[in-house]
Amino acid sequence: MSVRVGLDIGGTKMHGVLLAPDGSVLAERRAGTVPGPEGVVRGAVEVVTALCAGHAPAGVGIGVPGLVDPASGSVRHAFNLGLDAEPFPLVRRVGERLRTEGVLGADRPVALENDLNASSLGAAALLDVGDDLAYLALGTGVAVGLVLEGRLRRGAHGLAGEVGHLPVRPGGAECPCGQRGCLELYASGSGLAREVEHDGPEPLAAVVFDAAARGERHAREVRDRLLDGVADVVQMLVLTLDVGAVVLGGGIARLGEPLLTGVRSRLERREGTSGFLAAAGLARRVRLAPTDVPVGAVGAALALGDH
Amino acid sequence: MSVRVGLDIGGTKMHGVLLAPDGSVLAERRAGTVPGPEGVVRGAVEVVTALCAGHAPAGVGIGVPGLVDPASGSVRHAFNLGLDAEPFPLVRRVGERLRTEGVLGADRPVALENDLNASSLGAAALLDVGDDLAYLALGTGVAVGLVLEGRLRRGAHGLAGEVGHLPVRPGGAECPCGQRGCLELYASGSGLAREVEHDGPEPLAAVVFDAAARGERHAREVRDRLLDGVADVVQMLVLTLDVGAVVLGGGIARLGEPLLTGVRSRLERREGTSGFLAAAGLARRVRLAPTDVPVGAVGAALALGDH
Repeated sequence: MSVRVGLDIGGTKMHGVLLAPDGSVLAERRAGTVPGPEGVVRGAVEVVTALCAGHAPAGVGIGVPGLVDPASGSVRHAFNLGLDAEPFPLVRRVGERLRTEGVLGADRPVALENDLNASSLGAAALLDVGDDLAYLALGTGVAVGLVLEGRLRRGAHGLAGEVGHLPVRPGGAECPCGQRGCLELYASGSGLAREVEHDGPEPLAAVVFDAAARGERHAREVRDRLLDGVADVVQMLVLTLDVGAVVLGGGIARLGEPLLTGVRSRLERREGTSGFLAAAGLARRVRLAPTDVPVGAVGAALALGDH
Repeated sequence: MSVRVGLDIGGTKMHGVLLAPDGSVLAERRAGTVPGPEGVVRGAVEVVTALCAGHAPAGVGIGVPGLVDPASGSVRHAFNLGLDAEPFPLVRRVGERLRTEGVLGADRPVALENDLNASSLGAAALLDVGDDLAYLALGTGVAVGLVLEGRLRRGAHGLAGEVGHLPVRPGGAECPCGQRGCLELYASGSGLAREVEHDGPEPLAAVVFDAAARGERHAREVRDRLLDGVADVVQMLVLTLDVGAVVLGGGIARLGEPLLTGVRSRLERREGTSGFLAAAGLARRVRLAPTDVPVGAVGAALALGDH
């Protein structure tokens, strides 16, 4: 087996890795994302080409936001990439360019996967938790990726993982989705931005957690609603699916230990009052996504094996 | 392919079917359950023997409550069958007896499955909903069986489906599990029995729904909490897993249309206020389990193919 390339294309930047057959990262490359079809294709080709200097890759896996059809290699509704409702054949466009330029062999595949699914595959490979997990992405929005017994769960209509719109606080604030009290209002970057004004360079979640640690009342409320909501969804995922692990990822998970400790302590409190929950073992299943390795890019390379 | 036998062993009775290769039911047989190892084995052998007169079955599948280890063919904690914490080798005991008596060929398998999982497989086969569903059993307790893309989801520790202990009413009544407001308090036979006194022969859920239809206030509250709780779990299952269908089964589902209509109308109301939920299509995924065919026994026969 040969090296593989994984590329995670986000709204502001793309992140590529060259993956050895044993799964270790041989090289990394970042570039800014230029939205729009031509900008995305050109950026992807440039990053992959730079990574492949001196290598003949076995394939290229790409993760993107939006509605992905892995079978046709197309994506739509990736608004922050400037790709609209029309299915855009990203696999074909990137593949043609790479083959024309001699970077990729004629028979070597390009695979496309939703970025959350790619991150889930990456987390399953990078963490020592087995091949069964839920990857809870706490980013601008909130959603979960599911790897069940090693296989991605996409759902009957490709809609699995929309836990951001489970109401966790009855009678809570109005959500843009039309419901009230959705998890996304409390455990996402967009939700925090609604609660807290802040202009500095620090991530908003860190600002909130720091202020809460200093005892500021509103910050404590915002932090506690976030932690309660995440604990609710962890409990739901474990009781419903019995996933081996729930991995906290996305921008908010860069908080690290304060987030992990806060979620675990809430789950441990619940386990303390319920033998049933204690037997299910909620707290010990929660993990942080790795931050030293680009999970999404590694998972995109692994998505090659899932097609 | 030859005929197969499916046997659903419950706390009060066992129900067996002889299944044709095309999945149709050729014969049915019921018998009372005599709790305890010898009573369960003897009853199972008698029902299977009666069903197999004149046939050489390709195998026997058995569904039982409790913690089942399909690999070893043993069950424990099936308290209402009189089987305790010690793993009981039901497959070996029933298989030996059937082979000694010439009912089952030496190379023909006996398979064991949890009764809820068996019902899920049965529902997937009997309903025209594809091979992807959640089977929500509203019985003495509440739990869900998951068939995802045709495969049973048992979970990392065999605990998947414990949705009865998801809190659906914050600050609700105390649950024996140690939490408050669990779904099982509102949507199970045991939960209804806590709310309503009734001694007659009619099923308690029917008594409640009839009284609610007559306008009795407490009955309406009990009914509405049941319907709200079921709607919550349907929404959770669809948004998290994107299952193709949610099938309502168990004793309470024998209410039929009043249950289906009540759950659907709640989901339609939510869809009316949320384009997101409308796009997900909650209400149209809800179905009733078949009542004219013994779902658990048919599914037990199908569990043979899942081992």
